[in-house]
Amino acid sequence: MSAKPLTTHSTTISPDWVDYNGHLRDAFYLLIFSHATDALMDALGLDTAGRARTGHTLFTLECHLNYLAEVKEGEPVEVRTQLLAHDGKRLQIHHGLYRPGEDASLAESEQMLINIDSAAGRSAPFDEQVADKVAQLAAEHRGLPQPACVGRVIGLRR
Amino acid sequence: MSAKPLTTHSTTISPDWVDYNGHLRDAFYLLIFSHATDALMDALGLDTAGRARTGHTLFTLECHLNYLAEVKEGEPVEVRTQLLAHDGKRLQIHHGLYRPGEDASLAESEQMLINIDSAAGRSAPFDEQVADKVAQLAAEHRGLPQPACVGRVIGLRR
Repeated sequence: MSAKPLTTHSTTISPDWVDYNGHLRDAFYLLIFSHATDALMDALGLDTAGRARTGHTLFTLECHLNYLAEVKEGEPVEVRTQLLAHDGKRLQIHHGLYRPGEDASLAESEQMLINIDSAAGRSAPFDEQVADKVAQLAAEHRGLPQPACVGRVIGLRR
Repeated sequence: MSAKPLTTHSTTISPDWVDYNGHLRDAFYLLIFSHATDALMDALGLDTAGRARTGHTLFTLECHLNYLAEVKEGEPVEVRTQLLAHDGKRLQIHHGLYRPGEDASLAESEQMLINIDSAAGRSAPFDEQVADKVAQLAAEHRGLPQPACVGRVIGLRR
């Protein structure tokens, strides 16, 4: 079983991204995941040329983040991305943030993305070529286990 | 009943925060909310001086974001913050992003924050003066209705 998440993005923690403690600020974990989503769009044929051809783009509808470990300025990190589910115009994805070569995630994010017809300003079914790539990725990721942080609700359990 | 959320932060959408569409990128909604959390910390006595006095800070454990409307470069926005629940070391909060003077939110975020003893590097009960301010804010916000996006789970409903 060779199924594994897609390594979508690699970067190094920028001095601009850390707080007064020298640790990555909560919003910049999401910026790293946002760049991973850009790379996923590229992989699905929604890069600049694909967006121009289709008139489509992806918007983030909803996002859940779990912060599992601190990350410091200068550390190298990578994002591994799994397609959890999809329909004709939506993608439910999971991003995990890792130190390269390690298995324990530093943070995880579950997201719902929706395909948008930019001119109409509303959601639309995926372009046919994009839909094919989505189906192919879904087939590749079908055997992957569901990450632990998927489906969470925030709340105090006393 | 004069209870209302606390206006914690006001800003204008920076050119650095928009994507190729000229719209606020998903991660920068969270950066604005992150600055609102900083302001909430100030209000609870965990500003720079308070962090030095107590040795405590707040970390974000978990965060849920709902993107409800696009926001463009140059637009003024404000964050209104509600304390949903708390225990001896955790705060469950809700941030809403608004155009000043408007009632419809542009985005919402539910977050769980935890009090950290910075030297020990682990969670700790709130400092007594901070706990008093948390209790006072909780009393002020007790009458507020629960925002619509609280308690959500991400998923495809076909």
